[in-house]
Amino acid sequence: MNRELEILCVGNELLIGKTLNTNAFWIAKRATSLGMNVKRVTIVGDYVDEIAAAMQEALRRRPRLIITTGGLGPTFDDKTLEGIAVGLKQKLEVNEEALGMIIKKYEEYLGKKITKNGLTPARVKMATLPKEAKPLFNSAGTAPGVLVNIKETCLVALPGVPPEMEAIFENSIVPLLKKAAGKMAFYEMSIHANGIVESALAPLIDSAMHDNPNVYVKSHVYVKSQPECEGKMPGIELHFSTTATRAEAARESLQKVAAQLADLVVKNGGNVRLQDPTNG
Amino acid sequence: MNRELEILCVGNELLIGKTLNTNAFWIAKRATSLGMNVKRVTIVGDYVDEIAAAMQEALRRRPRLIITTGGLGPTFDDKTLEGIAVGLKQKLEVNEEALGMIIKKYEEYLGKKITKNGLTPARVKMATLPKEAKPLFNSAGTAPGVLVNIKETCLVALPGVPPEMEAIFENSIVPLLKKAAGKMAFYEMSIHANGIVESALAPLIDSAMHDNPNVYVKSHVYVKSQPECEGKMPGIELHFSTTATRAEAARESLQKVAAQLADLVVKNGGNVRLQDPTNG
Repeated sequence: MNRELEILCVGNELLIGKTLNTNAFWIAKRATSLGMNVKRVTIVGDYVDEIAAAMQEALRRRPRLIITTGGLGPTFDDKTLEGIAVGLKQKLEVNEEALGMIIKKYEEYLGKKITKNGLTPARVKMATLPKEAKPLFNSAGTAPGVLVNIKETCLVALPGVPPEMEAIFENSIVPLLKKAAGKMAFYEMSIHANGIVESALAPLIDSAMHDNPNVYVKSHVYVKSQPECEGKMPGIELHFSTTATRAEAARESLQKVAAQLADLVVKNGGNVRLQDPTNG
Repeated sequence: MNRELEILCVGNELLIGKTLNTNAFWIAKRATSLGMNVKRVTIVGDYVDEIAAAMQEALRRRPRLIITTGGLGPTFDDKTLEGIAVGLKQKLEVNEEALGMIIKKYEEYLGKKITKNGLTPARVKMATLPKEAKPLFNSAGTAPGVLVNIKETCLVALPGVPPEMEAIFENSIVPLLKKAAGKMAFYEMSIHANGIVESALAPLIDSAMHDNPNVYVKSHVYVKSQPECEGKMPGIELHFSTTATRAEAARESLQKVAAQLADLVVKNGGNVRLQDPTNG
């Protein structure tokens, strides 16, 4: 079963350091918790050729899903659909279903009936999709999401405004992810160590992972905002994760490795604090 | 002058939605403010082949700089240098200068003299660099940064721990960026509009940009946390940016476009609030 997912974020605001990419973070967290394997995140600017190139590169890696964010709105710099059309060598054309969704939004907004001819070009633009695409209803805004199937990959384009992205994701993408992930789910837990440096932990982690190959262990050094509380040494989080079909077995594996590593840390002069395992 | 920069972030924690990628945001903001053109951000996991592939792809686009973050530490999952070595077809070898930096750090930490043979394999790992690389001093931690020149591109690997990344960036990377950017600098300002929807703004933005091709205008829809204050419509930020060699001329251009667009917004029934232009 192909559980691989790539995220492609489009927007100059992400590349000039104006906007923190919380969309990729949110999607990565949510998709991982549903059992998917997020393989890559890419950010490109609002340029048709760069969007097309990044999408083609992602398609060549054959993930089950590609999710794009941003660039679906009415303004000239919203270029994601044009980039996708170029990348797929599909024409852009007005999609009647998408047009119906947009007309309905503006009728609600204006409080009166309007016709197709009553829509400005900027509004028609949001219904102009690659030829083989389907629109996805946006309950939190105007621009519909867009879905295109390309061989084994499902390409989904979502808006960049977070509540709109999240709404379409929950409505239309979660069911696709659940189907792709099957019974696989993601489990994780952490312990926090101090009084020991990361290089002293390295062989202890190696040893614990060697004994438990189904659990991935990763250490994260962090600096407390009040470092005087911890002496001179930064804290280290040891993070344990696994993807599995059975919850009980997964939690047992994580707790076993955590206990083993906690024991090793204490034997080597450090202190640990445990956290409970969670699902996703 | 090639002012293009790519950022390659390495770390499973970024792909499972455990850690928000503030490093890419920080670098993008800082490099843009110094006049660089950030073209792409990529995140891959802790896998040698994926790091190598992403680095080779970035090199083929011939940016002036590639900055990687993460994966320089002492643990088994710190694989960035191995990925770079594979991607560049260079051997990894112990770098004497890097080893000296690491010995000095542990001498300070332990409060006594140590020799090369006194370093554990995990500590020697942090000094094991691609053959043609140079180490960059890390004033905030142990693992040195790493610099390799490949034809016209300078590849720099920085740690993932934010204060360490930032310290090496400020010490060793800022001078490189200033040289690459020459006299170019980035200027931006914003106005905030409400009482108008984005699709109604689209033709106004088109018109303002047509008259001022050196200024980039981008609209961002945002939803206030207390939407009842603004009625039913979300706010829209209009962001103006330009890259130029002369500050006064750049600020004048931004203010001119902002005033022109503010005027158009008001004429179309909206309200605006101005902000002062800033440099970076």
